[in-house]
Amino acid sequence: MRILILGAGGVGSAAVRIAVRRDFFDLLVVADYDPARPQTLVDSLGDDRLLAAQVDASSAEAVAAVITDHQITHVLNAVDPRFVMPIFNGCFAAGATYLDMAMSLSVRHPEEPFTKTGVMLGDEQFAQARAWEDAGRLALVGMGVEPGLSDVFARYAEDELFSSIDELGVRDGANLVVAGADGEPAFAPSFSIWTTIEECLNPPVVFERETGWHTTEPFSESEVFRFPEGIGEVECVNVEHEEVILMPRWTKARRVTFKYGLGDEFIDVLKTLHKLGLDSTEPVLVKGMPVAPRDVVAAALPDPATLGERMTGKTCAGVYVTGIGKDGAPRAVYLYHVVDNEWSMAEYGSQAVVWQTAVNPVVALELLANGTWQGTGVLGPEAFDSRPFLELLAADSGYGSPWGLEERS
Amino acid sequence: MRILILGAGGVGSAAVRIAVRRDFFDLLVVADYDPARPQTLVDSLGDDRLLAAQVDASSAEAVAAVITDHQITHVLNAVDPRFVMPIFNGCFAAGATYLDMAMSLSVRHPEEPFTKTGVMLGDEQFAQARAWEDAGRLALVGMGVEPGLSDVFARYAEDELFSSIDELGVRDGANLVVAGADGEPAFAPSFSIWTTIEECLNPPVVFERETGWHTTEPFSESEVFRFPEGIGEVECVNVEHEEVILMPRWTKARRVTFKYGLGDEFIDVLKTLHKLGLDSTEPVLVKGMPVAPRDVVAAALPDPATLGERMTGKTCAGVYVTGIGKDGAPRAVYLYHVVDNEWSMAEYGSQAVVWQTAVNPVVALELLANGTWQGTGVLGPEAFDSRPFLELLAADSGYGSPWGLEERS
Repeated sequence: MRILILGAGGVGSAAVRIAVRRDFFDLLVVADYDPARPQTLVDSLGDDRLLAAQVDASSAEAVAAVITDHQITHVLNAVDPRFVMPIFNGCFAAGATYLDMAMSLSVRHPEEPFTKTGVMLGDEQFAQARAWEDAGRLALVGMGVEPGLSDVFARYAEDELFSSIDELGVRDGANLVVAGADGEPAFAPSFSIWTTIEECLNPPVVFERETGWHTTEPFSESEVFRFPEGIGEVECVNVEHEEVILMPRWTKARRVTFKYGLGDEFIDVLKTLHKLGLDSTEPVLVKGMPVAPRDVVAAALPDPATLGERMTGKTCAGVYVTGIGKDGAPRAVYLYHVVDNEWSMAEYGSQAVVWQTAVNPVVALELLANGTWQGTGVLGPEAFDSRPFLELLAADSGYGSPWGLEERS
Repeated sequence: MRILILGAGGVGSAAVRIAVRRDFFDLLVVADYDPARPQTLVDSLGDDRLLAAQVDASSAEAVAAVITDHQITHVLNAVDPRFVMPIFNGCFAAGATYLDMAMSLSVRHPEEPFTKTGVMLGDEQFAQARAWEDAGRLALVGMGVEPGLSDVFARYAEDELFSSIDELGVRDGANLVVAGADGEPAFAPSFSIWTTIEECLNPPVVFERETGWHTTEPFSESEVFRFPEGIGEVECVNVEHEEVILMPRWTKARRVTFKYGLGDEFIDVLKTLHKLGLDSTEPVLVKGMPVAPRDVVAAALPDPATLGERMTGKTCAGVYVTGIGKDGAPRAVYLYHVVDNEWSMAEYGSQAVVWQTAVNPVVALELLANGTWQGTGVLGPEAFDSRPFLELLAADSGYGSPWGLEERS
């Protein structure tokens, strides 16, 4: 296997650090728009399977050229979701397997954005599914932690735990705290603010088997969810996320939702950014120069990947599943994966949220490399067997990161 | 009198619209960095005493050149406070009388910003007071509404109403609402957000006769103040403002404070901007280009001067004065000036806050033109007789904008 990771940001770099401990690949090229970033990373790791490259991920041709130059077989897209389509198309053109952690972007319904879907997440990619299938090629989409591991949990729940599922409710929460210069807690998002704004301010999408997909107002259907391993209760709200698109395609769940444990403070920040128009990606003129306000918000905040040393706490991703168990009785289960920032920093030098996102596509690449996972077309993680994934993720001989199952009633 | 108004933004344009109804001047040049702005204004008014010009207000030489070219006698600075010093210096060099509505900026104390003053508002200007005095020239500083009319009220209170003043408490509040595209109230500040961020996030300054000036935390000493003419109760907090610097120099008040009726929502917005670093004037790199986040915040919001048509409500500026009255008994008085947006839009096509700021320097210019006000050096409005100002402001034959006095106890 010859891998190309596009993007040497937080997640891309963490994926490289995770992959170098494994022997399933022959070459790993890390490419970024800024060539200094992958070069620094490659120099620091001293593994002769690694190579740094420069690429403009907004150009399908440029992506295809890197693939061809290095005879790449598998591409992991680790840049922000604006670049999904050129990378996806570049992979198709050059004949490489494609993996991503976020799917092509949505466009809201022009008249009724908060009730009806417009263009949905991933629509652009699924529109090409037939072509990928016909060509015998694979795009494994939404293969991070959420989407990604959450979708693997959904597959596991349907296959192993339930005879019928009422709701697959993805629930994500954390108790991470970042210390400021003065030692007091600082405001510093632990994940890309660009992506967080995108997903939190878009109309959240909800799936109901009877009526299909519909949207709601941002931050709708607030609930307090209790997270395991000492994280405790966090206020969660509906957020637009790929799982709601993916899970209904490969499971029979009656309802699929995604709720994110943003907490009061973060919700207030996002609402304020929106109120001031600072979430916008439409450029405004500043001294005659066009600048997208959202890019300025991202530039003014610290890079989340650099926060690990100042951070304490745990992050949890999981799926709350309700329905009828294999024994015919009602069952409620929370399947989850917790990463302690202290552990991920000590083990990998990566902060918890970034590490948790990055480990899952590496596990998937290993399963594709050894032939355990196979497929063609545009497929979500639910389309594959969940057991080998969950075993490899947790095993000491694998990635040493256990997941959990909590019975709830 | 030959006037130069620098800045054809909201306040500068409103000052021109107010001045053209009066006959105390021979020439009024309106200059802006963008020459189209003053030209459009001049074209729309059809008064042959008006002239448009281009100027870079960051250059004292450029300002002096415009003064010399047009034999200007009086300059009104109506650009944002970053440009106070070049304009102030350009006036001195070219021999024109200088007026402004905001003074040179403060710099916080390096070690104890929230208890001690560093460089105070106006310090840079007062440092040159002797030179102006020796040259027989006048700089009339802080001559808008706040500072400006509020300082005139302070003078009036000391001369006419009180034998001794315990506190001059400037209190500013409004019930203005801006309708959004959907008819619902929208977030749209009625005054320059650049200046509002500057004054609200700097450490507020408080004056006590015994100990001098000291600073506090932003948004400190919250109180609910009742404003007249139906505006009602508004939450007011300490804000850094020129009155606290000016009033102690020309009155004997024991204590001087400034509290701004920001309201909960606006305070939350300002705190959030600060938390995200978006209040900063230090450039961040966005796609390799340096951009000051605060400039982007200003560019993303609607221009306050354009909001008049969508705005309803009133704005109130005033001074709450407590002490011993002329009769020896304790007295408490609120001296105030209210502008109804409906009136200012109908009469002048200017929104209320902008109009209220702009009318006061025009009244002052008229008093300087007819010799009622005279002086040399760097002087605040308190250094002049308050009666003729308040009469001219209120008279139907003057500016037709009455002020009020409310006894409180």
